[in-house]
Amino acid sequence: MLGILGGMGPMATVDFMSKIVRNTPASRDQDHIQMVVCSATDVPDRTAAILGQGSDPFPAMLNALRRLELSGATRIAIPCNTAHHWHGALQAETSVPILHIVDAVADALSRQRTTPTLGMLATDGTVHAGIYQQRLTERGYVCVMPDAKAQAEVMRAIRLVKAGLTDEAAGILGREAEALAAKGCSHIAMACTEIPLALAAFDGDIGAALLDPTDLLAQACVRSCLATPQEMVREVA
Amino acid sequence: MLGILGGMGPMATVDFMSKIVRNTPASRDQDHIQMVVCSATDVPDRTAAILGQGSDPFPAMLNALRRLELSGATRIAIPCNTAHHWHGALQAETSVPILHIVDAVADALSRQRTTPTLGMLATDGTVHAGIYQQRLTERGYVCVMPDAKAQAEVMRAIRLVKAGLTDEAAGILGREAEALAAKGCSHIAMACTEIPLALAAFDGDIGAALLDPTDLLAQACVRSCLATPQEMVREVA
Repeated sequence: MLGILGGMGPMATVDFMSKIVRNTPASRDQDHIQMVVCSATDVPDRTAAILGQGSDPFPAMLNALRRLELSGATRIAIPCNTAHHWHGALQAETSVPILHIVDAVADALSRQRTTPTLGMLATDGTVHAGIYQQRLTERGYVCVMPDAKAQAEVMRAIRLVKAGLTDEAAGILGREAEALAAKGCSHIAMACTEIPLALAAFDGDIGAALLDPTDLLAQACVRSCLATPQEMVREVA
Repeated sequence: MLGILGGMGPMATVDFMSKIVRNTPASRDQDHIQMVVCSATDVPDRTAAILGQGSDPFPAMLNALRRLELSGATRIAIPCNTAHHWHGALQAETSVPILHIVDAVADALSRQRTTPTLGMLATDGTVHAGIYQQRLTERGYVCVMPDAKAQAEVMRAIRLVKAGLTDEAAGILGREAEALAAKGCSHIAMACTEIPLALAAFDGDIGAALLDPTDLLAQACVRSCLATPQEMVREVA
């Protein structure tokens, strides 16, 4: 049983679940993966907390984790890049494995024929916390971040997507992706759930392959669940 | 905390969750309703069971209900029309209120200025079990079903949607909806999750208002949760 620690935000969780369903080879309801999902919208803003401007989201995330454990989850995924800042702290609280979104990206990179260099498009919180840089460097990958001015443009674009101004955001994100490609990035990670929505509307040639980390995490979850079906369901009391 | 007894099928559950999110007045993650969702894909086929051709889905549904209770759900919704055949049996097992999809439809009808007559487009299972007819008649509404030949066409169209042949299904469902309108129906309930996907592509004038029961159930859930926010979260052990 796959547990999803979600609600950050709620529509990103819905999108992640649809990616789980679409990535599952199934011809009838009963072929699909069993899931239990906590849409924990009470979790305070993650970027604000990382930047020291908001309350600690960990207690609410831990509460959602406990609900997933009680429901019988045998592995857990978190469809929010920034929330992975608390991945280690959450994993320390449970014996249920929590898949890491950056591992899903690194595993995808490891399947490339040449050595990839990864450019990052993400929120200030994800960048500031070093969520991708640290784990990818440990795995031997080079991770290229936008400079401060470019990062400000990326954040402006993310806010435009949230305000529904997708076309304007697409232009900004397309240019920043092109700039990362020009710096030698072979791949660009769209490491905020708003970014793929906008970049889909960009019709230029970025010059690098786009990676969608939540889709890669969904694929990793499906592989993990289908590899050990006997573990998929744990009886509840 | 809204509990969703889902997975019947999994994509219909994803669609229902997105309807919950879209129907919630919110400007940030924290304004959204907390949800716990069981995508119980182990529940056997509901229509097959109603027609005496499949195993009993009740034990697996009850297991999912228990998981939702353990997770702290204070009200529950089931985004599957046919599964409502077991609504009473499930409600008898729990003190947590389970909202009924037909009540959501009846409540929408009660807000009409004139007395509505409801035409039904649904699976053989939903029709055979009398899920809509019985509850709507109790509420004083007239419920008009397609005749046997027309019902066979509706089922054919539902199977076409499942096979991805939406355009062909749209023509069939549009004609059957027009036929119900010609019989005096002021409203048509699209009481199977596949039907709205196809009827959206029908460009004729049906001559009756189309109702989407899962969207009405989502609206009822949002109203119920926002009316008693203090009940929304029950602490788990």
